[in-house]
Amino acid sequence: MDIVKKVTDSRTVMTELVMPNDTNPLGDLMGGNLMRWMDIAGGICAARHCEAHVVTASVDHVSFKRPIKVGDVITITATVTRAFNTSIEVYLKVKTGKVTQNEMATSNSAFMTFVALDPYTHKPKQVPKFEPSSENERTLFESAERRREIRLILSGRMKAKDALGLKAYFSTPED
Amino acid sequence: MDIVKKVTDSRTVMTELVMPNDTNPLGDLMGGNLMRWMDIAGGICAARHCEAHVVTASVDHVSFKRPIKVGDVITITATVTRAFNTSIEVYLKVKTGKVTQNEMATSNSAFMTFVALDPYTHKPKQVPKFEPSSENERTLFESAERRREIRLILSGRMKAKDALGLKAYFSTPED
Amino acid sequence: MDIVKKVTDSRTVMTELVMPNDTNPLGDLMGGNLMRWMDIAGGICAARHCEAHVVTASVDHVSFKRPIKVGDVITITATVTRAFNTSIEVYLKVKTGKVTQNEMATSNSAFMTFVALDPYTHKPKQVPKFEPSSENERTLFESAERRREIRLILSGRMKAKDALGLKAYFSTPED
Amino acid sequence: MDIVKKVTDSRTVMTELVMPNDTNPLGDLMGGNLMRWMDIAGGICAARHCEAHVVTASVDHVSFKRPIKVGDVITITATVTRAFNTSIEVYLKVKTGKVTQNEMATSNSAFMTFVALDPYTHKPKQVPKFEPSSENERTLFESAERRREIRLILSGRMKAKDALGLKAYFSTPED
Amino acid sequence: MDIVKKVTDSRTVMTELVMPNDTNPLGDLMGGNLMRWMDIAGGICAARHCEAHVVTASVDHVSFKRPIKVGDVITITATVTRAFNTSIEVYLKVKTGKVTQNEMATSNSAFMTFVALDPYTHKPKQVPKFEPSSENERTLFESAERRREIRLILSGRMKAKDALGLKAYFSTPED
Amino acid sequence: MDIVKKVTDSRTVMTELVMPNDTNPLGDLMGGNLMRWMDIAGGICAARHCEAHVVTASVDHVSFKRPIKVGDVITITATVTRAFNTSIEVYLKVKTGKVTQNEMATSNSAFMTFVALDPYTHKPKQVPKFEPSSENERTLFESAERRREIRLILSGRMKAKDALGLKAYFSTPED
Repeated sequence: MDIVKKVTDSRTVMTELVMPNDTNPLGDLMGGNLMRWMDIAGGICAARHCEAHVVTASVDHVSFKRPIKVGDVITITATVTRAFNTSIEVYLKVKTGKVTQNEMATSNSAFMTFVALDPYTHKPKQVPKFEPSSENERTLFESAERRREIRLILSGRMKAKDALGLKAYFSTPED
Repeated sequence: MDIVKKVTDSRTVMTELVMPNDTNPLGDLMGGNLMRWMDIAGGICAARHCEAHVVTASVDHVSFKRPIKVGDVITITATVTRAFNTSIEVYLKVKTGKVTQNEMATSNSAFMTFVALDPYTHKPKQVPKFEPSSENERTLFESAERRREIRLILSGRMKAKDALGLKAYFSTPED
Repeated sequence: MDIVKKVTDSRTVMTELVMPNDTNPLGDLMGGNLMRWMDIAGGICAARHCEAHVVTASVDHVSFKRPIKVGDVITITATVTRAFNTSIEVYLKVKTGKVTQNEMATSNSAFMTFVALDPYTHKPKQVPKFEPSSENERTLFESAERRREIRLILSGRMKAKDALGLKAYFSTPED
Repeated sequence: MDIVKKVTDSRTVMTELVMPNDTNPLGDLMGGNLMRWMDIAGGICAARHCEAHVVTASVDHVSFKRPIKVGDVITITATVTRAFNTSIEVYLKVKTGKVTQNEMATSNSAFMTFVALDPYTHKPKQVPKFEPSSENERTLFESAERRREIRLILSGRMKAKDALGLKAYFSTPED
Repeated sequence: MDIVKKVTDSRTVMTELVMPNDTNPLGDLMGGNLMRWMDIAGGICAARHCEAHVVTASVDHVSFKRPIKVGDVITITATVTRAFNTSIEVYLKVKTGKVTQNEMATSNSAFMTFVALDPYTHKPKQVPKFEPSSENERTLFESAERRREIRLILSGRMKAKDALGLKAYFSTPED
Repeated sequence: MDIVKKVTDSRTVMTELVMPNDTNPLGDLMGGNLMRWMDIAGGICAARHCEAHVVTASVDHVSFKRPIKVGDVITITATVTRAFNTSIEVYLKVKTGKVTQNEMATSNSAFMTFVALDPYTHKPKQVPKFEPSSENERTLFESAERRREIRLILSGRMKAKDALGLKAYFSTPED
């Protein structure tokens, strides 16, 4: 598999309107609904890159900063940051704003990983390679390795002391 | 109100995944569900142009050419084509494709009109002007007048013999 | 296929209550939700006439006249107006009213076409003949030909100058 | 309040198509979804008779006889059977059939009661009188008294020995 | 089949938050939505006891005492009360309360019956035996026979004069 | 505010059945739907502890280990692990299994944080104190401080070198 794909081959933009049923009694979008939309946008992006059906493997830390209200517009942009062996990491950027105002502000962002599945065996299959095209894409591509170590530790598949990239990140020159 | 807005000020892209409940017993997306998504995308685009809440005034003829299957991806792009006094026309272009394949094909298109409402009186309010920026946008801008006449005739607010633009369209030089 | 069916063989009445999630931030039913219900009612009516699964082929111009509010009742009546070769035209009449008041007012109407599919090949199949029974049904039956020409022109399958029925409709005696 | 209303003043017909999400893993409509639709149809019928918002007070025994499958059509007809002081009893008749076949068979029926509420105090308010018009309607009107006694016993508001109508129903001449 | 199961083998607890779309225009949970949740909780409980897919056979009288508001929490507890030949009876207890207050009050209760189905033939299959473990469970176990007679009468499968258990229930010593 | 609450004061159990619309084209529950349910269960648990409406502040890393299929049962148990000043941490444990089999296996777990809001100002308000009752609860209570540091770093509100608890966690005795 020698195909090398870029961000533009799978970039996915989703726009949603916050409906009454998506909100809590205070009229704020419930975090879980936003995560559901992020998962769908990320899954479409991942499937497009992999040209295969995918399943969600993990969601990294998500924090919810500003309240999003009923009637607000949400735009989720999903882009691949790095392809591993049978999985890829997708970066999700969420912008929100009043539907009656032109400006949108960044509300959230998250990294999710997806695993590509073979259509017959339903087992993980190799994914096409990914190449960053800009400075910003290269930064995300490189930090993907560190985020991967955190995931392996958090899911119990790597010991903290073996996370070399992560250790370096927490080491200051004075150490 | 001297603001003149362009297509890029309100262009809205919506991506949806066809779920089981969106399909009929043959596994095809039901036309009404697609129309519902088109209405939401068009409404967001219109509200962004108008910087006001809007209501759907009309949907022109929509035809459904190719079957869209459960699991397929739909991308709806909504762009303003022309602003009238208190209403605007939005052009909706629908592309669909397998989530596991990279290419998307145009599936449908439609014109919808929306009316901007005053937040206090809930009465129609004037909308910002619109200016086409490309050759293609200009073509849509000009044909918008003819489509408007058809709508006025079809909703009983204009007599067929007064639809001057439309009459010209049906007249061939030999007439 | 010599069966000739009437309006009463497939007439479908659907009643719905407008729920919060069906409305926009101003509390008005979104046009797309009404179109979704019309498509379901029309599809059931068409399937009953055809005794086959059907897919939506087109929706003619729909205009939305009066705002419909959360908690309002909607009654959609779907009746066949004409059977063509493998498709039929269905007329949808929408009435709305407050659930706490007895009178309902006509809110919308639309014509939709559906194509009957063979259960094995999923290809279009011939549909049973249709016969109008009243004066009103005969009027709709005859105008169906003109609406069909508009659809063929609008979907690019007929040239405007070949739409003989339509041309006659736009010609006044003085021409 | 001297208005006397008839069945035809509030008769409500609802048609629904069974969607994938309404069914269990065997593809049968879940009973609870049918009850949800019956409650909406009954509530609209009750609100129309009472010209007031209503709340469901009770549902009598419902039994589910034949399996209803995904893609089937359901028609629920709701009619008032009797008006009490602040509540009314509604009879719900459910018919189902394949969408591709013309005949529908009775699948279920149930009696539900609704209480009319005052729009300002949200307290129960008196409902308009009801008069049966046919032999069948009279039978349902009369048996409504017995069903009311069962409800009062079952909800603990009447002792079994005081249910005179019910006692008579279980007494055979030989007693 | 000699397995004897207890309440704890299938006890099911479901918690739901009342969302805007679950309520009527007065902001009260619609009875039908509560019945839908009760049916799902009861069905899971029944399937766990039977180790088979089940279908709802009947719902006994349900009365709705206190209004449940949007934003309220609902807890449904489903427990088996008695196993018959191919069906079982499940008792559903509904508690509700404000999400911001600690106490929950009993709102409703109901008995539902479910039939276990063979995975291949989809015909009713024998269910595992059930044994009550406490005084309260024994009371429900014994009264299950009387409730069964009422169901058989109400669904027309038993004549009132043959309902021996029920007759005894309505007979006071003075008779 | 001297009230000290325990796990049992707010423990929330939610049971859900995976419906067709919750799954992807391979029939697996989409991760985002599970996160939506976890957010609702966690939010109810948090609101019960705080006796206030809450908003989701963050979700820690979630990984999805085993595929969950349509028709499977999901049980989410939400328990408070620690109360901070205006926020609390909730631990969510997800178990899944076939509805026709008795055993359930742990599928996921996650930590989420919620902020309590004042009903009038909608500003964060102080939350009741929390006291662990068992060895296991104490372990979660203590590690909550480390998870908090990770969140503060990940959301840019703390520098990595200041995360003293976290640093210790990554230090092995040999350092």
